[in-house]
Amino acid sequence: MKSRAAVAFEPGKPLQIVEIDVEPPRKGEVLVKITHTALCHTDAYTLSGVDPEGVFPAVLGHEGGGIVVEVGEGVTSVKPGDHVIPLYTAECGKCKFCTSGKTNLCSSVRETQGKGLMPDGTTRFSYNGQPIYHYMGTSTFSEYTVVAEVSLAKVNPEAPLEKVCLLGCGVTTGIGAVHNTAKVKEGDTIAVFGLGAIGLAVIQGAVQAKAGRIIAIDTNPNKFILAKELGATDCVNPKDHDRPIQEVIVDMTDGGVDFSFECIGNVDVMRSALECCHKGWGESVIIGVAGAGQEICTRPFQLVTGRVWRGSAFGGVKGRTQLPGMVEQAMAGELDLDPYITHTLPLERINEAFDLMHEGKSIRTVIHY
Amino acid sequence: MKSRAAVAFEPGKPLQIVEIDVEPPRKGEVLVKITHTALCHTDAYTLSGVDPEGVFPAVLGHEGGGIVVEVGEGVTSVKPGDHVIPLYTAECGKCKFCTSGKTNLCSSVRETQGKGLMPDGTTRFSYNGQPIYHYMGTSTFSEYTVVAEVSLAKVNPEAPLEKVCLLGCGVTTGIGAVHNTAKVKEGDTIAVFGLGAIGLAVIQGAVQAKAGRIIAIDTNPNKFILAKELGATDCVNPKDHDRPIQEVIVDMTDGGVDFSFECIGNVDVMRSALECCHKGWGESVIIGVAGAGQEICTRPFQLVTGRVWRGSAFGGVKGRTQLPGMVEQAMAGELDLDPYITHTLPLERINEAFDLMHEGKSIRTVIHY
Repeated sequence: MKSRAAVAFEPGKPLQIVEIDVEPPRKGEVLVKITHTALCHTDAYTLSGVDPEGVFPAVLGHEGGGIVVEVGEGVTSVKPGDHVIPLYTAECGKCKFCTSGKTNLCSSVRETQGKGLMPDGTTRFSYNGQPIYHYMGTSTFSEYTVVAEVSLAKVNPEAPLEKVCLLGCGVTTGIGAVHNTAKVKEGDTIAVFGLGAIGLAVIQGAVQAKAGRIIAIDTNPNKFILAKELGATDCVNPKDHDRPIQEVIVDMTDGGVDFSFECIGNVDVMRSALECCHKGWGESVIIGVAGAGQEICTRPFQLVTGRVWRGSAFGGVKGRTQLPGMVEQAMAGELDLDPYITHTLPLERINEAFDLMHEGKSIRTVIHY
Repeated sequence: MKSRAAVAFEPGKPLQIVEIDVEPPRKGEVLVKITHTALCHTDAYTLSGVDPEGVFPAVLGHEGGGIVVEVGEGVTSVKPGDHVIPLYTAECGKCKFCTSGKTNLCSSVRETQGKGLMPDGTTRFSYNGQPIYHYMGTSTFSEYTVVAEVSLAKVNPEAPLEKVCLLGCGVTTGIGAVHNTAKVKEGDTIAVFGLGAIGLAVIQGAVQAKAGRIIAIDTNPNKFILAKELGATDCVNPKDHDRPIQEVIVDMTDGGVDFSFECIGNVDVMRSALECCHKGWGESVIIGVAGAGQEICTRPFQLVTGRVWRGSAFGGVKGRTQLPGMVEQAMAGELDLDPYITHTLPLERINEAFDLMHEGKSIRTVIHY
């Protein structure tokens, strides 16, 4: 079948809106009509050409929502008409990781997903007879996309897909990191570095967890307005200080925070985030994705004196098990997605959405097909 | 009073056995007659002059046992005749750290201890009228030493001090890191880097925790004999492999270990220890003390994909609360201290004990007065 899609033909070039060919779903696969997709820094990172795993041409996009159109052989968990959110972190329920009870990092489709291929090692997309790669197992920048069954969360059909599509990445990542990775408790002091969608979601999660003090840190003070609306108690701009930001935070908090979250992908900030944690028990969670080959460093003394360094992917959330519940929370008003949606644009203007993101003007632009 | 002591007059020089003057204990202090002391790499590190906190002249030594001779004003928890183990990690029970329930890093005497002084900012030791510094709050290389009350664990007087003195540092550090910091559970796979006293104690702790597989790693294969006796299931010499040791361990364990322990103080090994952990849940514990200014590094991806990096000081053990119980375990045969004691020497030959350690010939030399 034909499908409108925004295709990344070459790194560093704008996406091109073209009509691609989409093959029917094979065994264990599902054809989904994407109704809405947002875009995220990871899409921009891959599009830039810096991502060593990036392959071209590809259909990017990993934060979307849609409706099942057709299912391949053996698919039983979804049927045509079901509303779904594609998952870049699959959940097969059977692999060593899924059955460990310790992680959401399912290994079932990881290897082929990382190469831009479906689990059988081929691609369902093509343009003028030339194959086009998939991306993160989701490729939500095509109106019709093919996704592995294990990479689909079935959600309440009453949920507004133009909003809950955000649960496909950023919001879930931030909120999940607070609850699943850090396990923030009532009264805890936290620091959030970077006030994009993930950082804002960390604030929302911390409010849910009844954190006592929520310190929001960004070099762009325009971000502080929304951060405060969502529940930040203090806002700090590192540019306002002439000493390392970790020292500022340690002084503000009588020794450091209980938990910190790095939501940027900057390895220097990751160090600051660790070192602003309280001696004896403070834990820092890396959420941001650093550039290829970059490394984090600190003195081991920081850890020997009781700080803990960990990371979080998709907020530790098991997508098929837990995402439907988060959708229900959003529907019940317990999780407000409206503040994230600063812009809405049709597919044809998706490159403008990238511009808005690069200029720091948007939190999330939702693309409608 | 006069006391025989091995004094570090200058960095990089052998200790000198002299008779020093020891003042009586002041408020909150206790005079202890040390009957036995072992020595440890931290003493050698400070003696070498590389330790930026090292001050001279000083009475080193932090792994000893002895008998209370006299108590200062206000001391209530010990009395003359009590058997005690000096603690370089105090436990006041009142500070923010002690009352947190999250750490053993008491702050009560930390500041002065780090400067080689008693809590009131002065020293009890002198030689020919010149003050001599304390060390780690313990200074067990003097037959009579003055220690803060909060830095003394009172232990069963029936316990053999020539053995349980080892619980003052290395053995407790290794065993405690397994139980308190990592919380190893039955069936877990662990890797231990460095088979000195701490590494061997990690093996003992892992056996107590019923770990399923215990991989011991050292570049000196002579260490493997004792490691196996204590319970190591596999011994690996990195020199036998032409690829990074973390890759070797990951292959041996179908993806990595559940817990790893760095017991050397080498920042490159700390990286290997982290990276040999299993994706999704593996945790690495830094125990070794790195040289001043050295840093640990890794790609943040290691943490984002579920590994955790932490550290441990004195095994997370609260000395006054928990050390008496470990002494009981040793008396009951549940904790065998004999394998660590490879040599015994009188105080006058303490420099030979340092030589044995540097040559890798001893695990612990116990000095008797």
